[in-house]
Amino acid sequence: MSDSIMLQASPLTAKSFAPFGEVIETEFAKTISINDGLATRFHQLATAELSGEGGAVAVSLFRSDPLSLPHRVKVMERHPLGSQAFYPLSVVPFLILVARNNSNNEPEEFSLFLTNGNQGVNFFRNIWHHFLIVRQETCDFLVVDRVGAGDNLEEAVVEQEVIIPMV
Amino acid sequence: MSDSIMLQASPLTAKSFAPFGEVIETEFAKTISINDGLATRFHQLATAELSGEGGAVAVSLFRSDPLSLPHRVKVMERHPLGSQAFYPLSVVPFLILVARNNSNNEPEEFSLFLTNGNQGVNFFRNIWHHFLIVRQETCDFLVVDRVGAGDNLEEAVVEQEVIIPMV
Repeated sequence: MSDSIMLQASPLTAKSFAPFGEVIETEFAKTISINDGLATRFHQLATAELSGEGGAVAVSLFRSDPLSLPHRVKVMERHPLGSQAFYPLSVVPFLILVARNNSNNEPEEFSLFLTNGNQGVNFFRNIWHHFLIVRQETCDFLVVDRVGAGDNLEEAVVEQEVIIPMV
Repeated sequence: MSDSIMLQASPLTAKSFAPFGEVIETEFAKTISINDGLATRFHQLATAELSGEGGAVAVSLFRSDPLSLPHRVKVMERHPLGSQAFYPLSVVPFLILVARNNSNNEPEEFSLFLTNGNQGVNFFRNIWHHFLIVRQETCDFLVVDRVGAGDNLEEAVVEQEVIIPMV
């Protein structure tokens, strides 16, 4: 646990991200022609998970400022009561950091992904993740996650030196 | 019922749209500072409604081509099992047509709204609406609506001459 880890970013793909969530992208999606042929529905790119009493799925908007890189990871978070989807409102690649859950319910085995600019993600319920890492300019994201009663945020301080490089 | 109606578009506001759904916009929203102060959450701009067995809330993407205007309205639709939210992925105003439900369960009293480019909408469950009307160029929308079992689409042919003008 005392070794320093310099993460390396991989391109985000549905396959590599599958243990952690869904990639929201039109490529490979099921398409349906709608609106008298005037529109295409790229269908069900992500599905909201909702558990616990008194919750609902809501649409919010996050306005994220850039994180100065390289950055040592301080805290990871996860949401025990629901999934959390993010889709960027401008075509700007951003970084996604996730981790596996170890037997002590702590994040370990970190994975860093870089989007291609036309991708969002939906973190599954209870998946350790860092807040979205925007690099150069403020970026807005549409967010679909659970709101309502219950404690839906768990945080873990990362003692190990885990570094997000400049990408 | 036989009179022709030339609709007039009003600017979309939360107040004027309140009978039909929610306006998804950052103005007037509840904000929460998150991510160590690096981001702002514009909280719960819309809330998904979900009814019926076997459904879930999903994220899809619609790619909509322009509708040639003026246009005579043919069909209105509504979703008896859930709300439907749209947020544009480019800053382009678009038109929203909704209607009240009359005692015969038909759309009447049409209202046309024009967004300001930084607004989305969430149609409440069971609200008559036209498919989104994009005017000049193809536009992508992130869509949050119900998927799954059950018949969630009702359509009504509009016999009256209702015209969407060039806006």
